[in-house]
Amino acid sequence: MRFLHTADWHIGHRLRGFDLTDEQQNAFDQIEQIAIEKKVDGIIIAGDLYDRSLPAEDSVAMLNQMIEKLNLDDHFPIYAISGNHDSATRLSTGTKWFKNTQFYLHTKLTQAFQPVELPDTQIFLLPYFAPFDAQQYFGDDSLKTLDQAFIPVVAKMKTLFDPNKKHLLVAHFFAAGSTHTKSETQVHVGGLAAVPVSLLKDFDYVALGHLHGKDALHADNARYSGSPVKFSLSEANQQKGVFIVDTDDPLSFSFKPIKPLRDVQRLTETFANLTSKDFYKQLNLDNYYGITLKDTKPIVNVLARLRDIYPHVISLDRENGYDTTVDYKGESGKKIRQKDPMVLLADFYQQIAKEDLTDQQKQWAKAALKIANNGGQNS
Amino acid sequence: MRFLHTADWHIGHRLRGFDLTDEQQNAFDQIEQIAIEKKVDGIIIAGDLYDRSLPAEDSVAMLNQMIEKLNLDDHFPIYAISGNHDSATRLSTGTKWFKNTQFYLHTKLTQAFQPVELPDTQIFLLPYFAPFDAQQYFGDDSLKTLDQAFIPVVAKMKTLFDPNKKHLLVAHFFAAGSTHTKSETQVHVGGLAAVPVSLLKDFDYVALGHLHGKDALHADNARYSGSPVKFSLSEANQQKGVFIVDTDDPLSFSFKPIKPLRDVQRLTETFANLTSKDFYKQLNLDNYYGITLKDTKPIVNVLARLRDIYPHVISLDRENGYDTTVDYKGESGKKIRQKDPMVLLADFYQQIAKEDLTDQQKQWAKAALKIANNGGQNS
Repeated sequence: MRFLHTADWHIGHRLRGFDLTDEQQNAFDQIEQIAIEKKVDGIIIAGDLYDRSLPAEDSVAMLNQMIEKLNLDDHFPIYAISGNHDSATRLSTGTKWFKNTQFYLHTKLTQAFQPVELPDTQIFLLPYFAPFDAQQYFGDDSLKTLDQAFIPVVAKMKTLFDPNKKHLLVAHFFAAGSTHTKSETQVHVGGLAAVPVSLLKDFDYVALGHLHGKDALHADNARYSGSPVKFSLSEANQQKGVFIVDTDDPLSFSFKPIKPLRDVQRLTETFANLTSKDFYKQLNLDNYYGITLKDTKPIVNVLARLRDIYPHVISLDRENGYDTTVDYKGESGKKIRQKDPMVLLADFYQQIAKEDLTDQQKQWAKAALKIANNGGQNS
Repeated sequence: MRFLHTADWHIGHRLRGFDLTDEQQNAFDQIEQIAIEKKVDGIIIAGDLYDRSLPAEDSVAMLNQMIEKLNLDDHFPIYAISGNHDSATRLSTGTKWFKNTQFYLHTKLTQAFQPVELPDTQIFLLPYFAPFDAQQYFGDDSLKTLDQAFIPVVAKMKTLFDPNKKHLLVAHFFAAGSTHTKSETQVHVGGLAAVPVSLLKDFDYVALGHLHGKDALHADNARYSGSPVKFSLSEANQQKGVFIVDTDDPLSFSFKPIKPLRDVQRLTETFANLTSKDFYKQLNLDNYYGITLKDTKPIVNVLARLRDIYPHVISLDRENGYDTTVDYKGESGKKIRQKDPMVLLADFYQQIAKEDLTDQQKQWAKAALKIANNGGQNS
């Protein structure tokens, strides 16, 4: 059988204030298209369907439409779990009815031990859970951390294994201990929430959600699909997509890319280059840009001027900070701080407004300075 | 066919800070029992399933369990609509799957024109809607008020009438114009949100939600079922329950009461009587009480002392206000205001604590008064 593995849709997520509805809908359309072209037998969604436990109404409407499209219109079985961003309780609404159309949505630890039985495959749907849930379920207070809690969880699943079938696990957690981890994306063991992937060696494939890059883990039998959309600047260099998992012997999986509607990219350049047409005419200006300026001098109205060219600037910083030794008309910064504030203000105004302060403006400024000084003197 | 008509469950509602979970679960259990005993063919829920558009997780879990019980365990068809307290979008999650088990939940105006077809009855499920929705649906900007909007809505429904069937309407709005309205519950026409019930005369029965008393409207063919639980002191005198509607010719309906777990009642009495065992031993002290004191003099710690006896006091007021002419040790109130604050404080402390201020306490009080006086003098 063939499955499409995706995760971390985070419907409702905003990128530095920018609405990602279009990007998410576009990525969804591509996922649907891949599923149709590859004639998959089901779609796995490994948690974090929503970005938050209390999604906005628009997000609810959007996810509902997506799921209805895949399951009711396209008739794809869906194998989904709740992630740490989802409210398991809210997401569980309707699940008992969803099974009728092979939409399996597990939100409780107990449901992890009710594998979906397919002709040649068992799918175990393990929702995100806290150690406390395992303590309660197993009646064992010693299960303080997630890696401890996973031991009886996996052991119990294995008692349910049908030896004549492949065994798929769908889960949402921070996996550690990949034997093939690339250095740049190495997942460090540590913290209470990390679970060694070696615990899961008896599954034929582990469809993971939680980390947003497909290269976060390179285990023989486990992958993060990654999110379908870049959700932060730190994901700028990630190739987004889904995995197609084929359970025919030997089990195999391959990555299918999703093309971003608007990409998220870093630009490290001087302000002069960034605002030069020769430079920016080669770029897709509709992308989301995290801009790092090579400049060290102050630049007036810098963000507004950049957004005139790049409307979706999502961050702005300096590669080398500000030049604090910069002279101000030949005087050192130390001396500047000793100057009369009125002189500094007049200079600043001239620089910005390209004209001198009027007499009226000087009066206002003097009055304001006086009030400020009095306020600072406690009398 | 026989239907149970209920509405306004308001799951998640709190009564002056008191959690009503137990009351709501108990009322639900009684509704389920009535449905089973009366062997109804379906359960009508006329809106306001939740108390708010963003229900708490506990409320979501509670309503989900109730609906699953009625529809999946007991196999009752459910005919439900969203009310003004519900988020139509949130409530709509899963509706396309619910139909498979005859759980019809309509949340959009368009769905009002898709009657549920039963052997001898058509059920029109009209969710709560705003005039704007009707403007959009009919492309008619002149539909400014709800009574205007109802005219084309009802006209369109009537084009769908099967003359061989009974016609039930389930709706959630403020109905006006009953011909048999009792004086004490008269519904005044007025406001943009009132709809004359005469508009609905062609329906055999109109199962309404919105008003919480079963006697809010006494039309020949329409009733508010009322809420299953008393949700405020203003509902103290209402008999809660459900209607059983029988569509056999001639259509008939009758009221079945729900017994409150903890009742909501008014008590108008003197403090002396309220705290006298002879008086309160005859009462169910677990009830929610709105207390109106006949006293006019100040009573120290009055709420705390009443709650020692009546743990669920939900309001406290005075029938005749306070006696403002009361003397204070023979002096008038005016003179009291001229007294030294330290003397007043010492008297007050003695009254409450039954002991004099210590020297240390007097010092603290003097220091505090001094600070308060300085603060009032702007220097």
